[in-house]
Amino acid sequence: MSENQLAKLREQVDQINLQILELLNERGKIVQAIGEEKKKHGTNRFDPVRERESLDLLLKNYDGPYTEATIKHLFKQIFKASLELQEIDYERTLLV
Amino acid sequence: MSENQLAKLREQVDQINLQILELLNERGKIVQAIGEEKKKHGTNRFDPVRERESLDLLLKNYDGPYTEATIKHLFKQIFKASLELQEIDYERTLLV
Repeated sequence: MSENQLAKLREQVDQINLQILELLNERGKIVQAIGEEKKKHGTNRFDPVRERESLDLLLKNYDGPYTEATIKHLFKQIFKASLELQEIDYERTLLV
Repeated sequence: MSENQLAKLREQVDQINLQILELLNERGKIVQAIGEEKKKHGTNRFDPVRERESLDLLLKNYDGPYTEATIKHLFKQIFKASLELQEIDYERTLLV
């Protein structure tokens, strides 16, 4: 039974991975839209205040089992990837 | 209107961040349960084959706007955090 148990748990992890992926994709598209809005107004894409506020919201709602440091690290990676996404878009428009 | 537009987009990002956080929390708990199952059977917690399969599933279902390299990087960070979670649990049992 325990091998079945392990397989079931892994199946659950796979499903969660796919849900996280879907949310990341959705988030990426919104971030691109935000980048467009900022570009229209000559606003800097990197906004440390906004990133701080975003992290604060997450840590306020965070509830283990990962440590706060881990959650902060993972989301900083997501924020960094999003900023890179906006920069890629920006560079593309420069080439047009 | 565009300032409202930016605020709306950011609100959407905040909601997605919280959903991702919730999924990470849920995932962390399942990963701890998997760690327990593996410990009962003296199985290594780190399983490179399993990680490879997990990444393959994600890249098969991946659909931009992030690059494949970015998705791979983000999930490797999540996998690493999960392994650390299991190691923390393991070390705790050694102290009991």
